Amino acid sequence: MKIGIVGLGLIGGSLGLDLRRQGHQVYGVARRADTCAAAVMGGMVDGATTDLASLAAVEIVLICTPIAAIAPTVQALAPHLAADTIITDVGSVKGAVVQAVSPLWPRFVGGHPMAGKAEAGLAAAEADLFRQRPYGITPLETTDPDAIATVHALAESLGAQVFICTPEAHDRAVAWISHLPVMVSSSLIQACLQESDTPVRELAQHLASSGFRDTSRVGGGNPELGLMMARYNRAEILRSLRFYQKQLATLTDLIEQEQWETLTTLLRASHEARPGFVETDPKA
Amino acid sequence: MKIGIVGLGLIGGSLGLDLRRQGHQVYGVARRADTCAAAVMGGMVDGATTDLASLAAVEIVLICTPIAAIAPTVQALAPHLAADTIITDVGSVKGAVVQAVSPLWPRFVGGHPMAGKAEAGLAAAEADLFRQRPYGITPLETTDPDAIATVHALAESLGAQVFICTPEAHDRAVAWISHLPVMVSSSLIQACLQESDTPVRELAQHLASSGFRDTSRVGGGNPELGLMMARYNRAEILRSLRFYQKQLATLTDLIEQEQWETLTTLLRASHEARPGFVETDPKA
Repeated sequence: MKIGIVGLGLIGGSLGLDLRRQGHQVYGVARRADTCAAAVMGGMVDGATTDLASLAAVEIVLICTPIAAIAPTVQALAPHLAADTIITDVGSVKGAVVQAVSPLWPRFVGGHPMAGKAEAGLAAAEADLFRQRPYGITPLETTDPDAIATVHALAESLGAQVFICTPEAHDRAVAWISHLPVMVSSSLIQACLQESDTPVRELAQHLASSGFRDTSRVGGGNPELGLMMARYNRAEILRSLRFYQKQLATLTDLIEQEQWETLTTLLRASHEARPGFVETDPKA
Repeated sequence: MKIGIVGLGLIGGSLGLDLRRQGHQVYGVARRADTCAAAVMGGMVDGATTDLASLAAVEIVLICTPIAAIAPTVQALAPHLAADTIITDVGSVKGAVVQAVSPLWPRFVGGHPMAGKAEAGLAAAEADLFRQRPYGITPLETTDPDAIATVHALAESLGAQVFICTPEAHDRAVAWISHLPVMVSSSLIQACLQESDTPVRELAQHLASSGFRDTSRVGGGNPELGLMMARYNRAEILRSLRFYQKQLATLTDLIEQEQWETLTTLLRASHEARPGFVETDPKA
């Protein structure tokens, strides 16, 4: 296939590496000419320009820009494409994106490959980034089945585990397991900074070990990503935060009232439920 | 030195491995004879019995039992020891332990090697478990300086990073970076279980990835450990939970009121503060 990728960062570049290796012809578009040159040099694309019109002949376009740029990009791209071209995206929020983009392009299929790493940008791109990682696809009832099938096959060709669901179910699910953890974890760091006894705060910093490291990781991550989650998945994040606050209040009450048996039951339930979400690891 | 270890589990066994390798003579006491046999077989001790009286000739005793057993063990051990024997412990809470044990044995020095792993028990013991890990030592003003120096040297001989502080400062600091994360993380798992839309909950379980894995790890850990933290460090955990709830409410309000600039400032502050607690890792 001839494939276009708009936005040559970590995700766009990594997709290019995998798709070229499969024998597809991959053409990139980036805002900056030096990014285009680097993507060609790095083998992420067969060619790249700063001009969306260069994608006129591709069969599918992957929009790999930040969330806020997805709809404007599709709007600017649409006049250049053949009517049967498929467009998909990689945004981590789907309701707002699908709602904005679907009216602009009938053959749009929302997508969300759930892979990432600390470093951003093209230089961090790597092959097999999506292997054995979840990949959500969020068609509407009106979405063309052939377009869905093409995006599905493309995601599976990356070695990803594909889940097809509505944009609403996707956003509610990722609020729980991706966006809520960021807010919970960021608040942990913030709370520790409230310790006004400086020697105690410094001691806490020295004593912090693997438990704090893991629990604070996503909360100490890229602030722009956290902001995007909050902006574009606001209602679902607020909903999950309210459930969370209630659970935390319950647990706090149990400690306050020294209800040790009930607390044990609750901690045991967490212990038993976790393997339903993630494979347990040696450190667990 | 002749060293006694009471409680041959993960910590006691690992200490034995390190101390024997340094050339010390290490004698163990466990409740069960088969644990004693396994510790001798595994090279954790030079000898082991189920009888505290067997430690009459040692110069220092390391109490490596669960927290609740520390004071009763010291009480039972005291009649068998020479007056200049030093006793230390490895409990993760220090205020309650030091308060209970100090009256029982003048040459007691509280200690807390902050290392652990998923598996409990002697079979999980390993050499170098404490290397480059924090090791808190919590003497009182009245504690004999020679006893402190001996425990300090022993901790450093393990390769640990020693921090000397009051039991109160220790408990407040570990509430922030060890105990609060457990409660925050357990509540995250509990909150996700509140999703009553079964397909969404199952989708969330499928989509959960490294972010959820890390944020839920300590909350999905050993329920008995969480209970011990809550019981023995109750006041400090409650204090840190109240600060945490306030921070979480602040963050929730910012999202509710769409105050994106202030939210960005807050998320950026978390991002910038985290390296003050833990070395940042490639995944961060």
